[in-house]
Formats: sequence, C-alpha cells, structure tokens
Amino acid sequence: MTLPRNVSLFEAGARDGLQNEAQDVPTAVRVELIQRLARTGLTRIEAGSFVSPKWVPKMADTAEVHASLEHGAGVTYPVLTPNMKGLEGALACGAKEIGVFGAASEGFTKANTNCTIAESMARARPVAEAALAQGVAVRGYISVAMGCPFDGETAPEMVADLARELHGMGCYEISLGDTIGVGTPGKARAMIEACAKEVPLQALALHFHDTYGQALANLLACLEMGVATVDASVAGLGGCPYAPGATGNVATEDVVYMLHGMGVETGIDLDSLVETAWFISDYLGRPPVSRVANALGGKGRTAA
Amino acid sequence: MTLPRNVSLFEAGARDGLQNEAQDVPTAVRVELIQRLARTGLTRIEAGSFVSPKWVPKMADTAEVHASLEHGAGVTYPVLTPNMKGLEGALACGAKEIGVFGAASEGFTKANTNCTIAESMARARPVAEAALAQGVAVRGYISVAMGCPFDGETAPEMVADLARELHGMGCYEISLGDTIGVGTPGKARAMIEACAKEVPLQALALHFHDTYGQALANLLACLEMGVATVDASVAGLGGCPYAPGATGNVATEDVVYMLHGMGVETGIDLDSLVETAWFISDYLGRPPVSRVANALGGKGRTAA
Repeated sequence: MTLPRNVSLFEAGARDGLQNEAQDVPTAVRVELIQRLARTGLTRIEAGSFVSPKWVPKMADTAEVHASLEHGAGVTYPVLTPNMKGLEGALACGAKEIGVFGAASEGFTKANTNCTIAESMARARPVAEAALAQGVAVRGYISVAMGCPFDGETAPEMVADLARELHGMGCYEISLGDTIGVGTPGKARAMIEACAKEVPLQALALHFHDTYGQALANLLACLEMGVATVDASVAGLGGCPYAPGATGNVATEDVVYMLHGMGVETGIDLDSLVETAWFISDYLGRPPVSRVANALGGKGRTAA
Repeated sequence: MTLPRNVSLFEAGARDGLQNEAQDVPTAVRVELIQRLARTGLTRIEAGSFVSPKWVPKMADTAEVHASLEHGAGVTYPVLTPNMKGLEGALACGAKEIGVFGAASEGFTKANTNCTIAESMARARPVAEAALAQGVAVRGYISVAMGCPFDGETAPEMVADLARELHGMGCYEISLGDTIGVGTPGKARAMIEACAKEVPLQALALHFHDTYGQALANLLACLEMGVATVDASVAGLGGCPYAPGATGNVATEDVVYMLHGMGVETGIDLDSLVETAWFISDYLGRPPVSRVANALGGKGRTAA
C-alpha cells in the first residue's frame, strides 16, 4: 500500500466532458479551453473524436479544433476513433494519439455500438494496428467497468479480459471507466487486482465518474495499489445520461487537490486549473460541479 | 488495514446542518426531519443546541423540538451545550446525551468562543462532570482538526492533546471535525495515528466536511485504520461559512452508499435516507448537495 510519487493526469473535459453537456460550445471556446488546460501543466488533453456527426454532432469540429492547437510543446491531444473512417480523419489532421474502446458488458456494447463485445474488439483491432503502423499511439477504453445500466454489476474478470485484449492489440494504456459511477473502493480494488494479472499496472488508468460521490475514494484505493494514471475532467464537465441531474466525470481539480495534499506530484498548477474550471463554467452559465472549484473559486471571485 | 464490520453513523443534519443553512426552518419541519431520520435506522440524531439564541437563533426552539420527539425507542437525540446554562436547558428537557466542544487552534477558539484553548477546556469540564453526575452521556467535539481558517494547518498533536483532555473528562466519544474540509487522506491518517496514542480508537469519530470533495477519501483512509464512527449530515445540509457557495458536512447518503458498497453494515435504509434528503431539500427549495441523492433521487422523482 504505497502511493505513487507521481501521477499522470489525462484530461477528458474538452471531449468526454463537453460531449455530455446539454449545451453546445462553439469551436473557438473549445479551442480556448484546451489551450488554457495546456497552460495548467496538463500534458495529455483529449481534443475530440472522429465519430459520425450524425451520432455525436458536438464533436463534428474536431479536425478544426485539432488544427488550431499548438503541437509539439510536450502536450498531446488524443482523439477518439471508433473505426477505420475515424482513424483516417485522425491521421489526416496529424493526431499523435488515438483511442479505441469497448465495454465490459454485452448489454452496454449492444446499446452503444450495436454489436457483441467480441465484434467490438474485432472492429478495434485493425484500427489500432493501422494507427501503430503510422507511428500513432493507441489508448484503449473500457466502459461500464464497475457496473452497467443494462446488465447490473460488472465482474472484474470481464474487465480484465478486455484489458488483456486491448493491451494485446498494442494499446499502451487501458483506461478503466466506471461510466455510471456506481463503484465503491472494495469493488475498485477487485477490478485492479483482476486487471493486474493480465496487464502491467503501469498500463492501467482510472477513469471514474463521481455520480455517487465515490470517485476520490475509489481513486485512493487504486492509487495505493500502484496505479499511477487518472482520467479526469476539468470542472467535472459531463453529466451522466443514465442519471439525469447527476454529475459525471470526476473533476480534475478535486483529484489534483487530493494528490497534492498527499504529496503526490502531478506537474499541474491548481490555481490555474481552478481558473480554467470557472472559465468554461461561466461560459456554460452555471458553477462548476467540482467541490474544489467552488471552494477556491468562490473566494477568488469574491476578491475579483 | 481492515475495515470495521459495522460503522455507527451520527446524524448531524438537523443541528449542525440546518444551523449553517441560510434559510430558517420552522420547528414542525425540523421535528418531521428528525422523525424521518429516525425511521431510516439512524440511532443517534443530533436534535439541537442550548446556546444563547442571541448567537444561534436557529436553534432557539430546541426544547420544543426535543419535547416533540418520541424517546426511548432505541434512538438518542443529543444536544450541544457550551456551558452550564446550556446544560440546565438540556437537563430540563430530559436530554440523554450532550456535547461539549473545543477547537484545535488558538485562532479559531478565540474567534468562536473568545477564549484560549485551555480556557475552553476549563469551561467544558464542569459541564461534562455535571452531566455525567446526572447519568447523561457526554460527547466531545474538536473543530478545525485538519486546518483552520485563521491559523492554517493543524498539527495532529494539537488534536491528540484535546482528544485526551476531552476523553479524560468523561466524553465517551471524541468527534474529530475537519470544519473547513481541507484535509486529505495522508493528513487524516496522521491525525488518527496521533489521537490513537492518547485515546482508544473506538472512542474516535470522524466528522468531515466535503468542502473540497475529500470527505469520502478521508473517511476511507481512517476507517481502514479501525475507526468505526462517522458523523454526517443528510442531504449534505450545512454550508461552509469560510467558503461561500461551497458545501459543508459530508452527506449521510454518500457515506452510507460507500459503506454498503464495501459490505460494511450501518443498519440504515439508503432509499429511505435519500427520500429524507429530498424531503428537507424540497423544503429548502434546492436539490441536495449529496451526489447519491441526486443520482438516485433524480430517478425516483422522475418515476413519481
């Protein structure tokens, strides 16, 4: 039970977050959000997805967003690519990292991508291979890793099987998503235990949602097992489509506050992150859902 | 690092919580809140305080509230008593448990009670002794146990000294309050470690605020050290006077969700607790600040 000395944050707010907000955000604002995030010290900032705009209209401007960013300054801007057509879009705009994904339940996979888990992996594999052949890094995502809105509890072994498969096709990191936020620390530990039998701990990332307020406790439990990568979303951007009115991704600033409080380094400037949380929340016309941004931001704004 | 099999919840919403809400709540609503809380399975429900109504007008009706409750059904309704006059009020209404308090920083003690820590303990001692002489149980509270808005970080030894003193004057339990919610898990563990040298672990209770979203992670860290009592506030009632717009006490339902998810028993019915969170939040005209009540309540209310 020892915490890692450094934790790497993967920022998901500008894609996973904004995609699940009710409101549309213009390209220029999304670009400014990403630029501000890069200035906080974050080095991996998810920038969009090449998914049919018919399904995800909010990310239709991903090529334009990607073209507006300053590349090569020690920051990568990964994009999500569900299929070969998506990969073509990503390669065309010069993306250095793509993401492929699956889900740890048949019910969710069917509802989300209208296929079986095995079929979803068969779709992901050639995408990953083609990306790697072009020198593009590939990250794997596993949804509903602790519970599913259709199939209930997720068995840790289901997640471990998928993690092995994604790692086997060349994903340098597997992001374990508690998509509906139902996990608790014991469950999170069991998931990591199962996955660590199949892939190295350093290849695992924690992608937890705070829907039931459990995200930080779950992160703590897994970080103490040696996992050292956390996905999070500035201002807690992104709701939960399965629980209206509930929160989504754990807020980056809440995670950073906990890590810095424990002496774990992230390379991120918390004040600048909180400012960025208020920047996008002000645009959306509501306070951030993160506790830290409200506690610190409230003070900062009173003084302003 | 083993979790307790059972955790005892001490419900603070109807006193600590409501006292720190902007809105006034009529006596009848406070009584109904307490009655509903008792039906969830909670066995210790803070019911008010005997403090000068000049300082805390919201609790001026405590004798009336206390008289309206059904006593002797396995539930106690503790009240806070800062001095002998408060104790007289508590005894007059037949309270079975009182609370005395101190704070782990000179700055907070001065600001809150206009005396030194040593003087505050000298005030608490005769109150505790008189209560015990009447067969009334005494609980001790320590504020700013992890950080202070005036004096900054709190040394664990300061908390441990006060805990020893309160235990020595007969408090059966010492509630360690992270009043401004700034603690993180490492700090929380250090505090418990220091206190456990002075008083038995079973005499410690965790009273954490979620101002920075850290409460559940901090609770997890301390429960794994063997502490088995948690103070919490239904719906997360109670703001933070030192961070406007921020949240206060950790929400009882978020704590219970985590505990049940880890197989720890509490004797509390979560659904009934969430219903109670919505009952008082509807009265206050805003959603609960708890994540669980929003995630589950949203569903329940859509169905209603």
